[in-house]
Amino acid sequence: MTDYSPQSDNYIQLVQEAFSKQGFMQYLGVEIADIKPGYCELHLPFKPELDQHHGYFHGGVIGSLADVSGGFAGYSLLPEGKAVLTVEYKLNIISPGVGDYLKGVGRVVKQGKTLIVTHIDVFGVSKDNEVHCATAIQTLIAVTS
Amino acid sequence: MTDYSPQSDNYIQLVQEAFSKQGFMQYLGVEIADIKPGYCELHLPFKPELDQHHGYFHGGVIGSLADVSGGFAGYSLLPEGKAVLTVEYKLNIISPGVGDYLKGVGRVVKQGKTLIVTHIDVFGVSKDNEVHCATAIQTLIAVTS
Amino acid sequence: MTDYSPQSDNYIQLVQEAFSKQGFMQYLGVEIADIKPGYCELHLPFKPELDQHHGYFHGGVIGSLADVSGGFAGYSLLPEGKAVLTVEYKLNIISPGVGDYLKGVGRVVKQGKTLIVTHIDVFGVSKDNEVHCATAIQTLIAVTS
Amino acid sequence: MTDYSPQSDNYIQLVQEAFSKQGFMQYLGVEIADIKPGYCELHLPFKPELDQHHGYFHGGVIGSLADVSGGFAGYSLLPEGKAVLTVEYKLNIISPGVGDYLKGVGRVVKQGKTLIVTHIDVFGVSKDNEVHCATAIQTLIAVTS
Repeated sequence: MTDYSPQSDNYIQLVQEAFSKQGFMQYLGVEIADIKPGYCELHLPFKPELDQHHGYFHGGVIGSLADVSGGFAGYSLLPEGKAVLTVEYKLNIISPGVGDYLKGVGRVVKQGKTLIVTHIDVFGVSKDNEVHCATAIQTLIAVTS
Repeated sequence: MTDYSPQSDNYIQLVQEAFSKQGFMQYLGVEIADIKPGYCELHLPFKPELDQHHGYFHGGVIGSLADVSGGFAGYSLLPEGKAVLTVEYKLNIISPGVGDYLKGVGRVVKQGKTLIVTHIDVFGVSKDNEVHCATAIQTLIAVTS
Repeated sequence: MTDYSPQSDNYIQLVQEAFSKQGFMQYLGVEIADIKPGYCELHLPFKPELDQHHGYFHGGVIGSLADVSGGFAGYSLLPEGKAVLTVEYKLNIISPGVGDYLKGVGRVVKQGKTLIVTHIDVFGVSKDNEVHCATAIQTLIAVTS
Repeated sequence: MTDYSPQSDNYIQLVQEAFSKQGFMQYLGVEIADIKPGYCELHLPFKPELDQHHGYFHGGVIGSLADVSGGFAGYSLLPEGKAVLTVEYKLNIISPGVGDYLKGVGRVVKQGKTLIVTHIDVFGVSKDNEVHCATAIQTLIAVTS
């Protein structure tokens, strides 16, 4: 992973503010676990409202967490006044979403002038176990917010 | 679009039952609008809990609706006792998710022995307008449920 | 499919010129079959150099044809002096690449200010048969050439 | 990256044999650089027949190399008598394909009963430089060959 430099000193605060404005993140119950330049880790505790027919995390929840983990990884590198939009992402679900919580880890792979590409992995975390649930690639576009 | 034949006479009921077991679909508020062999249309009325920072439908909501629209399009073709899992999907968000409700339309493109490939489009629908928000390709795998 | 208006009167000539500069297209043997605004159809006759282990068109050939079919569908809409670069694409191979020639059909789904999204389908065409080999979504970016 | 165990002692020979049957790989000029269980590195020297309009490696060439690098990473884990087919892949081109040769690196991320998921990176390599050109996720299916 490349080292990235944020373009704003208070990039952590900017991420927290942007995150707090997304009603859907609160509705799901997503929490910011770690923000570094070009890196974002989010946690999402299980609750029955998030399940599919087997009682695991729903694929849509896994996808949502992936999308946002990558999005804020990219957002952490932008100057104040800029925001990111998701252009597209592709997600492989490689194991069922089982665990006490989901951990989404987004990393910037390439920061271009206009576009940012991220890799994202999602894990189902239990007391004694961590399962790799999903892996994704995402393209973001930087826009004036 | 190819015409498909369902392998179960009560494929609509099977879809409804499978759908009703997904807690996350109820939590979002997704409703089945139409089921035909190899086709599924879902609606999701707007509520503030589903928004991102501009007050539009969150990308994760759009992605979740896409995933499930494609999933049930595939599921409609299976015999009783089978289910589908999402292997992967790729989603381009081409317009903001604005509207009174989102409409997800999933169509089977290829039904193989093991894998099913679907196309999905998501629209933001208002009284006088329908905007194409997202387009996706999805791979499903048929499993014994 | 939406109707699109080209921004240059001689968009067909511009496509032909750009196409002729790609050594790899000549090496494969790709031919332009049809260009309309937001639409590009390419043909690629079979030759043994393009095969995989079963003697069918290689997946890389199918992917290359898809990429370029979408690329020129997008390029057909640009003003003179602009070009497209492929940001990313996602391709499902749904049937083996069998046939006398491959037909790649690219269509613009969304033309944004910076980005263009296309759908692409690839068919294996024989005298009496046409098989849908692959389906793809592609993101292009318009740049100054 | 997980450690994987091959199911055949002569997995390297099996990869070499399968590779040699793909006419398109010889036509491009691809060479096997390294095979380990769940890992495949391929090299492709530049020649003008592989270029796009700027004289760099064509995107279709990058995509082909990515597809095959991932495919043989997966193939290396299979027992004799099995083969892989590409179900789908998604590729982001993050830098132009510049260099004396392209290096494709495929790694298995998940080996399931039926499906194998790989990550692939492609680099443009010059005497003093290595540029990350592309990153991809691929889904393979194991079949009886």
